[in-house]
Amino acid sequence: MKICFLAVGGELLKGRIVNTNLTQAGLMLREHGYNFTREVVIPDDREAILKALREELQENDVIIMSGGLGPTKDDITKKTIAEYFQTGFREDTETMERLRAFFEYRKIPFTDKNAAQALVPENCEVMINKKGTAPGMCFSVNGKLLFSMPGVPFEMLYLLEYEVLPRMKAAFPPLFYQNHILRVWGMPESFIADRIEKIEKSLPESLDISYLPRLDGVWLECTLKGNIAEKKPIAASLEHAVSLIKEVLTGYVYTEGQLSLPEEILALFTQNQLTLAVAESMTGGNIMGKLVQISGTSAYLKGGFTVYFTEMKTRLLGIPADLIEEKGVVSEEVATLMASKVRELTGADVGLSITGFAQKPDKTTSAQAWIGYSDKSGDCAKHETFISDREVNISRAVSGALIFLLRNVQELIEDTTV
Amino acid sequence: MKICFLAVGGELLKGRIVNTNLTQAGLMLREHGYNFTREVVIPDDREAILKALREELQENDVIIMSGGLGPTKDDITKKTIAEYFQTGFREDTETMERLRAFFEYRKIPFTDKNAAQALVPENCEVMINKKGTAPGMCFSVNGKLLFSMPGVPFEMLYLLEYEVLPRMKAAFPPLFYQNHILRVWGMPESFIADRIEKIEKSLPESLDISYLPRLDGVWLECTLKGNIAEKKPIAASLEHAVSLIKEVLTGYVYTEGQLSLPEEILALFTQNQLTLAVAESMTGGNIMGKLVQISGTSAYLKGGFTVYFTEMKTRLLGIPADLIEEKGVVSEEVATLMASKVRELTGADVGLSITGFAQKPDKTTSAQAWIGYSDKSGDCAKHETFISDREVNISRAVSGALIFLLRNVQELIEDTTV
Repeated sequence: MKICFLAVGGELLKGRIVNTNLTQAGLMLREHGYNFTREVVIPDDREAILKALREELQENDVIIMSGGLGPTKDDITKKTIAEYFQTGFREDTETMERLRAFFEYRKIPFTDKNAAQALVPENCEVMINKKGTAPGMCFSVNGKLLFSMPGVPFEMLYLLEYEVLPRMKAAFPPLFYQNHILRVWGMPESFIADRIEKIEKSLPESLDISYLPRLDGVWLECTLKGNIAEKKPIAASLEHAVSLIKEVLTGYVYTEGQLSLPEEILALFTQNQLTLAVAESMTGGNIMGKLVQISGTSAYLKGGFTVYFTEMKTRLLGIPADLIEEKGVVSEEVATLMASKVRELTGADVGLSITGFAQKPDKTTSAQAWIGYSDKSGDCAKHETFISDREVNISRAVSGALIFLLRNVQELIEDTTV
Repeated sequence: MKICFLAVGGELLKGRIVNTNLTQAGLMLREHGYNFTREVVIPDDREAILKALREELQENDVIIMSGGLGPTKDDITKKTIAEYFQTGFREDTETMERLRAFFEYRKIPFTDKNAAQALVPENCEVMINKKGTAPGMCFSVNGKLLFSMPGVPFEMLYLLEYEVLPRMKAAFPPLFYQNHILRVWGMPESFIADRIEKIEKSLPESLDISYLPRLDGVWLECTLKGNIAEKKPIAASLEHAVSLIKEVLTGYVYTEGQLSLPEEILALFTQNQLTLAVAESMTGGNIMGKLVQISGTSAYLKGGFTVYFTEMKTRLLGIPADLIEEKGVVSEEVATLMASKVRELTGADVGLSITGFAQKPDKTTSAQAWIGYSDKSGDCAKHETFISDREVNISRAVSGALIFLLRNVQELIEDTTV
């Protein structure tokens, strides 16, 4: 089954806004067992819209259009669709009533430009837009479906969920679809592939494995599709396949599923009533900065230090200048002591630290970090090397530190429980 | 001139990652006087790639492809392009040398799968990828250009800037294009538009003004295009227009041009041999984290504190608990004292601080922040309110703090110079 997302909007092509509609719509479709097979982005231009309608209606079963339905003169999607179908306009009564009520409620004068939003091509079925003023439209063309919706993200998503998907399901019943994500740190994509290739014969032939290299490691998405009647055997078969893959990747899978690292850490700390403090050098605040992006962090993250100048490691954290001189500022000893000092100074249960070079400091030394960890049971540290540019190295250092934190706190909890 | 961006990657269609490549590439093209006229996203699928190559090479002058060049077997772009051109492969010597050196340096075994990255279609010109292992490729087809690059954002952008754009300029010289960016903080887009509309008659008719709402304020991009022969009059006319616009926006334009806030701050501090320390609450490390993203920060950013728990403001910074109790933790007094305390504790020339609510703490209070500043001439503070979600509010708070820092340090330097 072929489904095309057709986005109308010059601002996407100019780099003015990011095309999050494709991402959000793609996720929603997958939840319902569908997949976009293609996306096309075109400007608000008559020729471009006519060409895209002609080409995409020929190739696809379903076309989901967004954008170009506003009241201003540069929004020409509706007019051009009518031209494509060589059809006139009719006024949609329900939309007109909704528009009048909306303008009355907001006490804004109702102009011809606004009233024109209730005009729709004669051959369309209106999809009532409860989140905005421009109606959605559905066209049936030789057994194919064409949907047109506004580009405003929450209006688009509302219409997709409540108007588009039910019509798609009636016309093209979806396959059952089950997936599982394994997240790997410390092993490059090609090595993972090599290990999986060796057990390929034991895996179901229809298993789809996608590799997503991300700043927090490689995400391995394992997917099986099938008829809804085979739901149970599919789930069992996927579970078995995942367990085989996990076996060949032992020690590298740091978590499963889609929760972000800050979300996992938040859950772990709050469920176990632990607190955290962090001392950052190389990452300059980005570890803590990442953790506070989600709501609830103030329940466990006490705070910490950024000790960017070497002198600050001594002045603020009390790392002896001698030790730094002897072992080097990027060393296991300094990282470990930073973690235990920040724990001590803040009174937190867990201390995390990092000291490193975000970019190669000279020709012979690589970008690298020592990550330190401290809790009541002791201190430890871990080394990471980085091969990219400064900004990426910092992001990977943040991921490396959070993964190290996650593992150690999981162990701490297991030990405490035992 | 028709330019198509062709993104290969099922993960984009599945909603697994956001297509920021189109946005970044679109912005970079515009800086060089070009515009994408179309984008197509397809999965890593042989049929889909062949179809897109056939269709887009017919319609466009330039096709910029990204994605599908990794070493795993789901990456089939290179193979499929060769199939399209019915050509064999050759080994690219320079790429092979780079690969060997890279694996040697990282002490990882060099496998056949890795060596295969140096194989390229016989009819391509290799574009050396200094940021990764997969080479870029350029194909000339009947006066048209086809580029293929990895989909990893920083590799794609590197190749676009240093390899693709120079070749495009040689084959399709862009129009002369002059632009000037005014950056506005503290005034919404529609208010700016109203003020500019009032002087519209004095501005050149062909002046294009784009409004780019960003996390660091609204970027007003004023552009005039024309033939290269009219370079001088165009520049003069643009300069005059910009001065008129600046006049109606007095007090709101915080800087001009494209330097990022961290770049401007780095220049200001290092040229004047000043040092900085920061105490963050609401932003949790993101102010310092943003500053360290660029090289050179270690010359002026001493470090600082994240005092996320209220108790930490007292314990680490010495803010009296009484003051917090009396004035509130989000108050002018606490912000000001945080800035002066962090300056004192680190011995930095300048102290910056922030305390706030990243999201509405209750129904009647809004998301907001007090930003504090301290130098030898005294302390001051500024209030900001936020209306978006947590993550966006934090980013806007970081921008607000850096803009406040920039203004105050500029004043400090002017005072010192006088």
